[in-house]
Amino acid sequence: MKSVIILGGGNVASHLTRAFFKSKKVDLVQVYSRKLLQIEKWRDKTSITDDLTKLKDADVYIISISDDAIEQFSKELQLAGKLVVHTSGSVHMDALKTDRKGVFYPLQTFTKGKKVNFKKIPICIETSEKEDLLTLEKLATKISKKVFIIDSDQREKLHLGAVIVNNFTNHLYSIGKEICDKNDVPFEVLLPLIEETTRKVKTMAPLDAQTGPAKRNDRKTIEKQISQLTGNQKEIYKIITQSIVETYKKNGKEL
Amino acid sequence: MKSVIILGGGNVASHLTRAFFKSKKVDLVQVYSRKLLQIEKWRDKTSITDDLTKLKDADVYIISISDDAIEQFSKELQLAGKLVVHTSGSVHMDALKTDRKGVFYPLQTFTKGKKVNFKKIPICIETSEKEDLLTLEKLATKISKKVFIIDSDQREKLHLGAVIVNNFTNHLYSIGKEICDKNDVPFEVLLPLIEETTRKVKTMAPLDAQTGPAKRNDRKTIEKQISQLTGNQKEIYKIITQSIVETYKKNGKEL
Repeated sequence: MKSVIILGGGNVASHLTRAFFKSKKVDLVQVYSRKLLQIEKWRDKTSITDDLTKLKDADVYIISISDDAIEQFSKELQLAGKLVVHTSGSVHMDALKTDRKGVFYPLQTFTKGKKVNFKKIPICIETSEKEDLLTLEKLATKISKKVFIIDSDQREKLHLGAVIVNNFTNHLYSIGKEICDKNDVPFEVLLPLIEETTRKVKTMAPLDAQTGPAKRNDRKTIEKQISQLTGNQKEIYKIITQSIVETYKKNGKEL
Repeated sequence: MKSVIILGGGNVASHLTRAFFKSKKVDLVQVYSRKLLQIEKWRDKTSITDDLTKLKDADVYIISISDDAIEQFSKELQLAGKLVVHTSGSVHMDALKTDRKGVFYPLQTFTKGKKVNFKKIPICIETSEKEDLLTLEKLATKISKKVFIIDSDQREKLHLGAVIVNNFTNHLYSIGKEICDKNDVPFEVLLPLIEETTRKVKTMAPLDAQTGPAKRNDRKTIEKQISQLTGNQKEIYKIITQSIVETYKKNGKEL
């Protein structure tokens, strides 16, 4: 059985800790955080500490802290010869200043307090030493059914893609809700449409699923809608419309 | 039992025709299209015609043709005293040049050939005559569980919201897929994230669900990601990020 220590007490760290506890096939021997209060909740289940000199022995040390702090934190570790990984989507593996290193990146949007089914969360792994890849793969498959080997350059692009399909999409939902609220229309009217858009992307390429005034280059509707918006929302409407129009011109699709 | 005639043979008209056939509580007495070939498929089930002078008698006439054609088409109808409605999200009710008029707008993205569950599709209705509202409401509840009374001004805004949460979101998915394809990362890695984003919007306000570098105003990640993009995609990234940053400044949320 693989043994693991989690270094971190934040949002991602907590979700990961919970997932490892749930798996009977991983030995979570310790959780570290410099704020002991954050990890008090694990006290009954495993060893907790806020002292880096008291880290126990384990197969894998998982740093799950804020992106900016990873490099400096890794320098403070006294874990010669041990496999140390981070969980960040946007930090290069080489930011870790340890001998054996890797990445263990669960690609999901974690909301504090909201439980997730880890089995369905893709985990992207990478290691500096070839022989460690199998260790990390075994560990990942204990908590998720979807494990992908992704190098740092790919992961950087994947993170960019994630920001676009998740964070940006959510902001479009915010704008949609704001428009509904302002006009006394219940936002729930739009929910089935949102669901259908997501259902579609699972079965067909989004390039083929595109519909709407921009796809048809319907200038009358486009101009009218632009006139109904102001500020950033107007600019967002304009540039996405332009991008859709040009995409379908470029691909020679029927307008 | 309410009787209906559908005027149109395109995509939305076909989905609507199918939904009415499915309901045992609506009498679909005729389907009209100027291209008879489009509606040949209904010949065994109801009367079909391409001749406006041969329209039968019905409680409601539903015009389901392209937005630009609705006004002119309504002028050609000889339906004095009859309730005539259109199915468009973006055309004002008054575009109909008939005595009694209304709107019967199913808010969904219809893909040709892809079946939909009409019961879950919100139908937004509106009438010029108060007494017709009940007729339209009864008709709508026969094929959908979600019927909303929405006037033309609200519907215009709702359509704008729909373009943003559906068409624009789908384009963001396209961009995400393009980034994955270019970097040999399977797009399916992003699918669970897309699903989670949609699941969230059903249970919490998108304003509260926002995560990511723009929400945190994490300039290092933002600048790096901007540098990885070109053309329209770069501009889309910049303006949506700016909009998120300003939204959370404005709302005084923690960054």
